[in-house]
Amino acid sequence: MTTETQDLRRAMARAAEEIDQALDILLPTEEGPEARLYAAMRYAAVGGGKRLRGFLVLEGARQFGVSRHAALRVAGAIEMLHAYSLVHDDLPAMDDDDLRRGKPTVHKAFDEATAILAGDALQTQAFLVLAQEDTHPDPAVRAELVRCLAQASGARGMCGGQMLDMLAEEGGQQLDEAAIGRLQTLKTGKLIEFSAEAGAVLGKAAASQRHALLGYGRDLGAAFQIADDLLDATATAEETGKRTGKDAEAGKATLVSLLGLERARLQADRLVDQAKSHLDGFGERADLLRMLADFVIERRN
Amino acid sequence: MTTETQDLRRAMARAAEEIDQALDILLPTEEGPEARLYAAMRYAAVGGGKRLRGFLVLEGARQFGVSRHAALRVAGAIEMLHAYSLVHDDLPAMDDDDLRRGKPTVHKAFDEATAILAGDALQTQAFLVLAQEDTHPDPAVRAELVRCLAQASGARGMCGGQMLDMLAEEGGQQLDEAAIGRLQTLKTGKLIEFSAEAGAVLGKAAASQRHALLGYGRDLGAAFQIADDLLDATATAEETGKRTGKDAEAGKATLVSLLGLERARLQADRLVDQAKSHLDGFGERADLLRMLADFVIERRN
Repeated sequence: MTTETQDLRRAMARAAEEIDQALDILLPTEEGPEARLYAAMRYAAVGGGKRLRGFLVLEGARQFGVSRHAALRVAGAIEMLHAYSLVHDDLPAMDDDDLRRGKPTVHKAFDEATAILAGDALQTQAFLVLAQEDTHPDPAVRAELVRCLAQASGARGMCGGQMLDMLAEEGGQQLDEAAIGRLQTLKTGKLIEFSAEAGAVLGKAAASQRHALLGYGRDLGAAFQIADDLLDATATAEETGKRTGKDAEAGKATLVSLLGLERARLQADRLVDQAKSHLDGFGERADLLRMLADFVIERRN
Repeated sequence: MTTETQDLRRAMARAAEEIDQALDILLPTEEGPEARLYAAMRYAAVGGGKRLRGFLVLEGARQFGVSRHAALRVAGAIEMLHAYSLVHDDLPAMDDDDLRRGKPTVHKAFDEATAILAGDALQTQAFLVLAQEDTHPDPAVRAELVRCLAQASGARGMCGGQMLDMLAEEGGQQLDEAAIGRLQTLKTGKLIEFSAEAGAVLGKAAASQRHALLGYGRDLGAAFQIADDLLDATATAEETGKRTGKDAEAGKATLVSLLGLERARLQADRLVDQAKSHLDGFGERADLLRMLADFVIERRN
């Protein structure tokens, strides 16, 4: 492991810890007869996960001297949104998964109705946190954060991508490269893009800087997705901590199955270079973001 | 039917039509391979329903000369939020209902996964619409609308109430009057409250006026709930267009089962008077709101 990778891993671990502390404060505490709902929300959102999206928010915000308090609230909101999507994706009617991050999924640990409700309430809580005055004194910033998160995660973002994914699996369709790209942009790309961009919104950065971070997030997200597919195709379950070879087994078209390992790897490399080039106007402060881009295609888990 | 009731019914029918037109514009159009999602969202949200919540927004907004365009966007957002809650409540893991407003529920007309996703995306779309500049030029108003809707519908509002309701049914608990009141306040009351209040937020009304509308909404919502329980206990299925006697059959405690028909009716009357008294500072413009309060306990469907 290079020193750079060690620095990055340390920074990510520290950020994940801070984000967990923020989530502990931002989520309703377990009291009252409806505490089961709050417990399920916490079970889904607190602890575990790489917190890639939250880390992007924190590092983006750091470019503009945004207060850690504000950045952590936005990071927490985006991680809640991400957690809600996982809870609902895992439901029996969707991907029907029993395990997530090594523990039983919410509908297994609680029940299906509680999982549906907890996902719903996590989404709501994400928007609530963004809209609260404590997130930023300027209401224009708060309204813009809400607008961007809703855009990234709704019908023309994450939910739309999830629909595409379901339809492709159901119909057994072999998507072409363009269709796979669109699916992944919607399903995971837009939220990663916004995570990278959010710090610029918080910092009221110049449009050019906001645009640069958004471009970074877009290319990083695309590289991340190819890396995920490569891992699924090549890594062992011991390395990743989850079952591998799932895509091939499901006959699911990915960029890796379409392009082959070698060309997929080259494309991921190209995307990483492109992601970093968006940061050319940023100084040393953006080094962790640069390392992160290298890291996403090097990781084995 | 009194002339007043006729006036109110006409106004509500007109408002429902306008709200449907607004929803048609505010929801994504059916194009692209993910059109199934948009179709399910529209199926759930457009057409049908009394639009009580939307009507409250429009009438509240009218007190302060808010543009019809802005009021309709907020009315549409709240109706989307309400529609999402119905889609998820109807799911097999929740109330498992096959019919809603006389047509198959979303998971029957489409499938369960699509229904989960459509509900999710309707919630997101509600927040998106509120946060968009087109809703109000002042971002402070937009951020406040988002905050209030999230508060009313999240873990400490609608979702929390839904959890309470599920737990009560599951445990076969007989709730006392206070617990039933709390459940209903959370499950349906808070969103009706905000619907009445939203026009004051849009119109940047004085705190006292905003507070008056909120109080009106609170008492109206409580009266509405008792009226619903009374209908379930006394009306025929032909009158209501849905199965009646469900509460007694399910052994579900309501204010009606606890207090008896007569005392429940008296309490509803008292709430209606109280609701109207909040409007004492408003002129003739608030007459439809006054009529609505009388109407909720007179209706037979």
